[in-house]
Amino acid sequence: MAQDTSILKNRIKRVRAKLKAAKADALIVTLGSNVLYLSGFSGDDTWLVLTGRGTVLVTDSRYTLQAKKECPVCKIYQRKGSMIDAVAGIFKKLAAVKTVAVEDKIELALFNLLRKKLPVRIKPIKNPVESVRAIKDKSEIAVIKKAIEIAEKSLGKVLPKIRAGCSEMEIAAMLEFELKKAGANPSFEMVVAFGSNSAMAHHRPTNRKLKKVDTILIDFGAKFNGYCCDITRCFAVGKVNNLYAKVYKTVLQGQTDAINVLKAGIEAKKVDEIAKKTIRSSKLPVFGHGTGHGIGLDIHEQPAVSLLSKASLQNGNVITVEPAVYLDGKFGIRIEDDVLITENGCKVLTTRLKNDEVPLIKTSIRRSALL
Amino acid sequence: MAQDTSILKNRIKRVRAKLKAAKADALIVTLGSNVLYLSGFSGDDTWLVLTGRGTVLVTDSRYTLQAKKECPVCKIYQRKGSMIDAVAGIFKKLAAVKTVAVEDKIELALFNLLRKKLPVRIKPIKNPVESVRAIKDKSEIAVIKKAIEIAEKSLGKVLPKIRAGCSEMEIAAMLEFELKKAGANPSFEMVVAFGSNSAMAHHRPTNRKLKKVDTILIDFGAKFNGYCCDITRCFAVGKVNNLYAKVYKTVLQGQTDAINVLKAGIEAKKVDEIAKKTIRSSKLPVFGHGTGHGIGLDIHEQPAVSLLSKASLQNGNVITVEPAVYLDGKFGIRIEDDVLITENGCKVLTTRLKNDEVPLIKTSIRRSALL
Repeated sequence: MAQDTSILKNRIKRVRAKLKAAKADALIVTLGSNVLYLSGFSGDDTWLVLTGRGTVLVTDSRYTLQAKKECPVCKIYQRKGSMIDAVAGIFKKLAAVKTVAVEDKIELALFNLLRKKLPVRIKPIKNPVESVRAIKDKSEIAVIKKAIEIAEKSLGKVLPKIRAGCSEMEIAAMLEFELKKAGANPSFEMVVAFGSNSAMAHHRPTNRKLKKVDTILIDFGAKFNGYCCDITRCFAVGKVNNLYAKVYKTVLQGQTDAINVLKAGIEAKKVDEIAKKTIRSSKLPVFGHGTGHGIGLDIHEQPAVSLLSKASLQNGNVITVEPAVYLDGKFGIRIEDDVLITENGCKVLTTRLKNDEVPLIKTSIRRSALL
Repeated sequence: MAQDTSILKNRIKRVRAKLKAAKADALIVTLGSNVLYLSGFSGDDTWLVLTGRGTVLVTDSRYTLQAKKECPVCKIYQRKGSMIDAVAGIFKKLAAVKTVAVEDKIELALFNLLRKKLPVRIKPIKNPVESVRAIKDKSEIAVIKKAIEIAEKSLGKVLPKIRAGCSEMEIAAMLEFELKKAGANPSFEMVVAFGSNSAMAHHRPTNRKLKKVDTILIDFGAKFNGYCCDITRCFAVGKVNNLYAKVYKTVLQGQTDAINVLKAGIEAKKVDEIAKKTIRSSKLPVFGHGTGHGIGLDIHEQPAVSLLSKASLQNGNVITVEPAVYLDGKFGIRIEDDVLITENGCKVLTTRLKNDEVPLIKTSIRRSALL
């Protein structure tokens, strides 16, 4: 499916402005999601050369047909030799180009080869495309919303099927299957963690079986039409333990406190501090990770919402807000929603929890209701 | 699950030998699959510092518990600040270390930060860990075999469910679900391509519905316990067209010709030439990609089996052999198996096709048999 031409042209224009500011005549885009963003091309092993006037997608025979279908604004160049030689060939014909920017996330070895083989000055610059991608356009927000809708519906279909005896992996498999049936993919390897496994923030699903009285943390997302969402929900199984209920309320309060201050202009690290302050005041251990991150074509994008972040939030950022409490050997609770930053506040794109009661999965009652 | 200590120690020893040859006192391992290979750690955002004497895994609070479980041979260092600052702190205490190697695939920006902040000389080297990973040990071959077994069984379960009217995405969803149920993940985003879609080597599954007379190409793999397999199979649906049968035989012959010359010592590009020669002699268009690639923790590893490859195959390499013919607007046929290189020949790890008849999916007969 070809991306809308005017949207692509607008993105390219915004990147060209960055290039001009960096005093570069052209940009070599090597990172897959940046290539996709600017060209519409969704395959691998393909670079985009962007000059002041044109854009050339440098691909190989595996992808030429796909590129022609997907890329309405680029010239398609089918390379036969190495990528570096192909790009060098392009710049040998562009006498006016003196300085070529590359993403500073480029592989060192490729950077060194470009420096050696290209007849121009190579200048690494920081986030030339990522900084543009951080501000989502309407078409992107619509796709992220659709990804969220798919993710939420899929979770809704899986929850009633959860039984004592299910494994973490089985729940992950069911959830992935629902995402797939809806035309999406998981946006990352999902976390399904029972009991003490949930104290590990990035636990991978295992064969651990769900007990009649237990807890579940599910952190997952859908990737739809290239765009990711990211949601975490926690559940008690059988009955709700007092400590779990207390921690749950605190985490949700931390999330609400952070969401309440979101708007264009606020420093990202300030948002992180606010979520952590709420948890600290409840005498619970403060989570070590950031409170959130941008989402988009990648599951982790700009801006980071963490102590180390130097960014201020901007109108059009889409970020996660995901405070947590981890109690080693007991359980972890993380609550995560996806939020669009606006000029005067924010819009939560996911369906927020309605209240601070722990959602309870009553496996025994459900089981007999089915008999 | 912690990896076997003696296996990890052996791998670290082999990498230390590379370091010694490169005149470096230590190595900073930044790429996830390299960290996993040497430490057993399966999470993200974590580096490994390997000196002549010890190994330190530098992670953060999200992963500390997991690291303690997974890494029997490393010291675990939980960073609070940035990764670069943590690593700089480690080297400030290691006065004997003068030269530190980094993978030349490191991100340029990280390389520049390391150069700026570390009190040592930083020396990029090519494939310090990848070259060791290219030679699989017995434990790895056993896991790859298990991944293959899961992939083949999963495909076997899905094939009888294919009906005219199924979409490419539905078949992909069914296949992924089977992989998941068996405790594996897809090793890459699978290709399910009907008819002319299969002429695009890396087509992504769409909503295109299977016709009563059609063709299918499925390129997929299982990732099990970290290790990938990679298999492509092609099918006729309803009836076998003469051209399809002819191309199928030729591709299979090209594969057989390539497999017949495999053994330790042969140049990888020679293998690529042989597969392509068979196809060229049948007056069919020669595929533009390489004939194969190494598989292991990553789906694409050393050695590349392509025209541009400078490698010779080595005892213990596990590679794919996947010649193809793509006829634009008609169909593509690719046949791919996974092969272990041995001293005197090779061992095909996948179950090779029994003969050169095109496998036929009879959707109508199967459908009535179910009624």
